[in-house]
Amino acid sequence: MKLHNFNSGPSILPQAVLTQAAEAIINYNQTGLSLLEIGHRTNWFQEILQDAKDSVKQLMELDDAYEVLFLHGGATTQFMQVPMNLLDTKATAAYCDNGVWGNKAFKEAKLFGNVQVVADSSDRQYRYINKGFPIPEDATYLHFTSNNTVEGTQWHTYPDTHVPLVADMSSDIFSRPTDFKKCALIYAGAQKNMGAAGVNLVVIKKEILGKINRPIPTIMNYQKHIEAGSLMNTPPVFAVYVSMLTLRWIIEQGGLAEMGRRNKTKSELLYNTIDALPLFDAPVAKEDRSQMNAVFFLNDPALEEPFLALCKQEGMIGVKGYRTVGGVRVSMYNALPMESVQAFCDLMHAFAQKHA
Amino acid sequence: MKLHNFNSGPSILPQAVLTQAAEAIINYNQTGLSLLEIGHRTNWFQEILQDAKDSVKQLMELDDAYEVLFLHGGATTQFMQVPMNLLDTKATAAYCDNGVWGNKAFKEAKLFGNVQVVADSSDRQYRYINKGFPIPEDATYLHFTSNNTVEGTQWHTYPDTHVPLVADMSSDIFSRPTDFKKCALIYAGAQKNMGAAGVNLVVIKKEILGKINRPIPTIMNYQKHIEAGSLMNTPPVFAVYVSMLTLRWIIEQGGLAEMGRRNKTKSELLYNTIDALPLFDAPVAKEDRSQMNAVFFLNDPALEEPFLALCKQEGMIGVKGYRTVGGVRVSMYNALPMESVQAFCDLMHAFAQKHA
Repeated sequence: MKLHNFNSGPSILPQAVLTQAAEAIINYNQTGLSLLEIGHRTNWFQEILQDAKDSVKQLMELDDAYEVLFLHGGATTQFMQVPMNLLDTKATAAYCDNGVWGNKAFKEAKLFGNVQVVADSSDRQYRYINKGFPIPEDATYLHFTSNNTVEGTQWHTYPDTHVPLVADMSSDIFSRPTDFKKCALIYAGAQKNMGAAGVNLVVIKKEILGKINRPIPTIMNYQKHIEAGSLMNTPPVFAVYVSMLTLRWIIEQGGLAEMGRRNKTKSELLYNTIDALPLFDAPVAKEDRSQMNAVFFLNDPALEEPFLALCKQEGMIGVKGYRTVGGVRVSMYNALPMESVQAFCDLMHAFAQKHA
Repeated sequence: MKLHNFNSGPSILPQAVLTQAAEAIINYNQTGLSLLEIGHRTNWFQEILQDAKDSVKQLMELDDAYEVLFLHGGATTQFMQVPMNLLDTKATAAYCDNGVWGNKAFKEAKLFGNVQVVADSSDRQYRYINKGFPIPEDATYLHFTSNNTVEGTQWHTYPDTHVPLVADMSSDIFSRPTDFKKCALIYAGAQKNMGAAGVNLVVIKKEILGKINRPIPTIMNYQKHIEAGSLMNTPPVFAVYVSMLTLRWIIEQGGLAEMGRRNKTKSELLYNTIDALPLFDAPVAKEDRSQMNAVFFLNDPALEEPFLALCKQEGMIGVKGYRTVGGVRVSMYNALPMESVQAFCDLMHAFAQKHA
């Protein structure tokens, strides 16, 4: 049976990336050695790392004001590392509380300084993104989650402010053209659009560093990682390699313009299907719908279980909603083919017909 | 040409592990999905994680007083995480400064509390391990590096003390039977004897936790990781899988007794060869020689370059000494076959004959 992988992350990756990654484990680039067995200070790995960094800068269209780091950990590590590096004990950071992950992020920041939640959509179960909220001019930074994987919302334009923007882009990075330059710091766990779990992309506008007095543990210090060229310690070699391959794949496919076109097409097909079938309901505000994760429900809760059972039977993987949200969640990252979305929509139609 | 991989880490892994890891990237366990594409909360990954934890406990012969965690990062992360979790601001931890890594470890600890260096072998370029030094009875813990990868020394017996022992075992874990129970906390980056770079093993005697007042960032909090069963956030799935395979391989080969037998045989052959050939000199104290990393020099420094060139020509990978130490370093981790050590010793003999 053909499987359709709608996992929310770790999630589907391009087949070409998987094939090359498997080959590298046996014999990296005809060296006679496995990628897992080579030193991280060899030219072999230096080239992989440089290629990955260059691809990030190319895709984001960033100049040398920014540095690209590949660090251990996932976005959760950044919930701590961002305020540890940027937020002085007596200063205030502004946070947007628009979902499960943004909520966790501001709670961690409280360990380091003052936090002001300037946007909060928990009043409607995080089913929309706040707009037009005031941002204190003296905030050290404004943190937001560009795509809420759990709730299925996405920022389609970023806030206009003089306050430096810090964006957790874990679940929509490289999915469409975006004004990355608007942000002073961007971070993302790799395991959605950028590769395998186990590495964190951190892109930093250098001018925001060096402004606090707190002593920072070496391994958490962005500045020290920049000085060491992401090689302060042994990096997660394999995960960096898979990111490099995935970034190269994005460029080969036509870059962010092409990713954006595909993701728009896929998500429009799915949302149009949901909207057309009265059996289903997508309660997220239409203008904030995520192109990456569509969250929806069956109007008759009794039908949820049979619907999910049918999905399973037909090889539709990973479509059960997040444990605190319930319902259905269909994740449509870059590597998910249109064919899978079409198959899912066909299944929705068939189910709706049966239960009309 | 047959390559002999003496890399210090990332380093040689068992061929069977590499084969299975490559297969899993294409099609994990006949699921039709890549290991990189499956969710970390699936039964598939839960079984991998449980298998890895069980193997650690089995090999270490530990009971339920201990918890096993697989965390993001490498040993350098633990230099911070250990004192952050264990050392109160006004308390004192005892550290052994017996090499490059132990030195880094105690410097990080100073950010969290008081540090007393109770053993220091820097007076002789870290070429021996201190013995019989006093340990303050009120120290929160005593930290030591069980094997010094850079300098080629190893603790062959652990300190006898009532103070909880914290051991960085990154470069000799699972290389021989050891009294793990003597330690209250053991950590190790995986990329030597335990798998691929990108995951940290942390084994904790639970009774040492919960004794400090400092608020700990969630992602750094051992207790929270224990409560979440190493699944607080997306773990480095692939690196955990490779660790699981490597641990299983160790058990299948005969466990730590067999690893210890092999490593003793390999290192004895190499050290005997060094000692027998006047061209070479191993300045490390004989009783502290590492079975994992043999560091030695050519008595005539002018011969170092031609010797390393010959090694390269003959496919001997990774034998140049660490950048601050120089000379030659031969790493002989579990997966290195006797055949490679024999080939290296043959090369030493041939070189010595030519330059006699």
